[in-house]
Amino acid sequence: MRKIIVQKFGGTSVADTDKIKNVAKIVIKEKENGNDVVVVVSAMGHTTDHLVKMAKDLSPNPSEREMDMLLSTGEGVSIALLAMAVQAQGYDAVSYNAMQIGIMTENIHSKARILGIKTEKLKRDLKNGKIIVIAGFQGVTEDGEITTLGRGGSDTSAVALAAALNAERCDIYTDVEGVYTTDPRVVPHASKLKEISYEEMLELAHAGANVLHPRSVETAKLNNVPLRVRSSFKLDNLGTLILGVEKMELNKPVAGVAQDLSQARIVVCDVPDKPGVAAKLFSKLAQENISVDMIIQSYARKVSNTNDIAFTVDKADLHKTIAALESLKTEIGATGDIEVDENIAKVSIVGAGMIDRPGVASTMFETLAENGINIRMISTSEIKISCLVDKEQAALAVKSLHSVFKLDSDVKADVKGDLPNI
Amino acid sequence: MRKIIVQKFGGTSVADTDKIKNVAKIVIKEKENGNDVVVVVSAMGHTTDHLVKMAKDLSPNPSEREMDMLLSTGEGVSIALLAMAVQAQGYDAVSYNAMQIGIMTENIHSKARILGIKTEKLKRDLKNGKIIVIAGFQGVTEDGEITTLGRGGSDTSAVALAAALNAERCDIYTDVEGVYTTDPRVVPHASKLKEISYEEMLELAHAGANVLHPRSVETAKLNNVPLRVRSSFKLDNLGTLILGVEKMELNKPVAGVAQDLSQARIVVCDVPDKPGVAAKLFSKLAQENISVDMIIQSYARKVSNTNDIAFTVDKADLHKTIAALESLKTEIGATGDIEVDENIAKVSIVGAGMIDRPGVASTMFETLAENGINIRMISTSEIKISCLVDKEQAALAVKSLHSVFKLDSDVKADVKGDLPNI
Repeated sequence: MRKIIVQKFGGTSVADTDKIKNVAKIVIKEKENGNDVVVVVSAMGHTTDHLVKMAKDLSPNPSEREMDMLLSTGEGVSIALLAMAVQAQGYDAVSYNAMQIGIMTENIHSKARILGIKTEKLKRDLKNGKIIVIAGFQGVTEDGEITTLGRGGSDTSAVALAAALNAERCDIYTDVEGVYTTDPRVVPHASKLKEISYEEMLELAHAGANVLHPRSVETAKLNNVPLRVRSSFKLDNLGTLILGVEKMELNKPVAGVAQDLSQARIVVCDVPDKPGVAAKLFSKLAQENISVDMIIQSYARKVSNTNDIAFTVDKADLHKTIAALESLKTEIGATGDIEVDENIAKVSIVGAGMIDRPGVASTMFETLAENGINIRMISTSEIKISCLVDKEQAALAVKSLHSVFKLDSDVKADVKGDLPNI
Repeated sequence: MRKIIVQKFGGTSVADTDKIKNVAKIVIKEKENGNDVVVVVSAMGHTTDHLVKMAKDLSPNPSEREMDMLLSTGEGVSIALLAMAVQAQGYDAVSYNAMQIGIMTENIHSKARILGIKTEKLKRDLKNGKIIVIAGFQGVTEDGEITTLGRGGSDTSAVALAAALNAERCDIYTDVEGVYTTDPRVVPHASKLKEISYEEMLELAHAGANVLHPRSVETAKLNNVPLRVRSSFKLDNLGTLILGVEKMELNKPVAGVAQDLSQARIVVCDVPDKPGVAAKLFSKLAQENISVDMIIQSYARKVSNTNDIAFTVDKADLHKTIAALESLKTEIGATGDIEVDENIAKVSIVGAGMIDRPGVASTMFETLAENGINIRMISTSEIKISCLVDKEQAALAVKSLHSVFKLDSDVKADVKGDLPNI
């Protein structure tokens, strides 16, 4: 039985007709390799920006339903053009939007989740030797309403299709060459990872990577679909394979080092040390749709019977957070100040291999100490250790950790384009 | 019971966001008049040209299926934007593409005919007070294939929707102010017609009018849907109402004068006068998809037992026609030359009122004779008389006929934009 490969190409890969011709070549090469090929594409380059601009001209707050109607036309253009480009090379190709094949989603606009994909039509076309080109980012509800999947939507479409079709692999073609051990702009000798586990990728992504949206990685993990991230412009480079940890060839204790400069630290001082206070505080922030990352509560001071609660939020949410805290301060009986520090960075090491290897955390802390870097907060998960440090020391922290965990490459990374922020 | 008005806006009426705001005002005004409103829109301005250009970059001969996929995205953009513009004024609006509401067509790409329209969803939305915005020009087959309707497609969508919804009227908003008695570029005192019958409009359209595609007029006639053609930029002008002849207030013998400069005359000389020759000739042309307009066969010459067959074709088909005739000449035993004359014009008078009013034809012939215009060929239908004249005499013929049949207006027509060629 022939294997099915799902390929996904983002907006920069199909930005103009020359680039679409390049994509057609990649698609045909996979077909020539003896595989069945299903291609998922995003809207061309800046199409979405252009559509959004027109919408804003017409309405300060356009309805999400009509925004989905509008934005879904973007992929409608790129799928038809790619199918034509493949046909022009003498191959049979057919394009479908989400409604035509039935990429079924929840009835929620602008950020729907995929509920299921009908595969009869696709399987019949593949059997007939056709290359199938499918619109990413969009879906349809049972009532025939057009939805979009939100950020990272096309990646999610591709992974969901790979899962539904029981595909051999889902190849995400993008403008970066793969997943690096850290941001090559910070560490020029960052290594491109040959493999990484879903879990590690998720931690790296949440810690600031922008190669793949966490949702698509989660979908791949859930369905155990191997993902390959690679460049559509450098085909000699196989990129990075993302797969289940059990399938990985080797597990270094640390797979990558990430820095996140987008967070701010907030300390609510002198909070009464009694049950329910923290719950009240964080449920208030959750109501306001503010994501909180690291949380530390100090030991209670014996004299005053109060403690301090420190946490980090995205800088974009800072004003909203302070407003929420001010209104809550009296209610929870906090008597101290609300301290804000934007001059911080979160540096994380990530690795599935750290689970059964003791000493990784102490190596991290010692390395930072040796480099004169003060740790302001610490948080850990099974496969990640994050330290909050002063922003100006972040690059030094990343470099020294990258080196001590033996992630440096012999060759300098080729830093071009929109590099992953990990 | 509330009346339903279907409105259709062409590409120039929705060419940019300012124009879309203008359309939203027109739509809302109709709603404020107490009617239910269903709006059909075309793709914005030059969208289609842009899409076609990209397709040609990718393939010299793109598949019609993928062209339909591509072009149908154009209306997808304009419907969503118009719905947003209406919503921004505080009215409830919803946009649908052809697939969502079920504008069912034949399974033929690029020129499908509408088979039927599902109206449940539309009726429910109208009942809920919504203004409905629908993509023109496109349809869907039973198998979920996207089709387009070819030239004049959006007009046809609008008329078919008006018929399916049993609408009070279908208003075609365009960049001309209505249907004129003749081309105001030829006769500055051409009158805008207040009313015209379907039949007259069809004859005028086939004789060179470009206000409405004949297919939409035919669909309106078949379903007895009153059509109004009016300008989306001059709203004080009610345009021209096109309706059944039995509903018309008055019937002038002649409603309009048309000229057609796009035809060429061909004479096949010395054709044997025996049965089946003409049939052979014209079925050959039909096979080649060549439309023949006027046909005249001369009386047979007693001596040679041959006659001449003269007819007109569109100049675009001239080369194809000559090639077909050359290959046929021996087969039908024609011994004379094939004469071609491109220096001709067809001048027609059209009017449902001429049916029971004798003397219209003789007035036409006399008027042309008085002006020194030689008639080269004549053809007639129930409501039209066409004369082939020398091209340089066409304008004089139109002017004199326009005057003799009392069509001149007191005011000079406001000649702007893309005027109807009638």
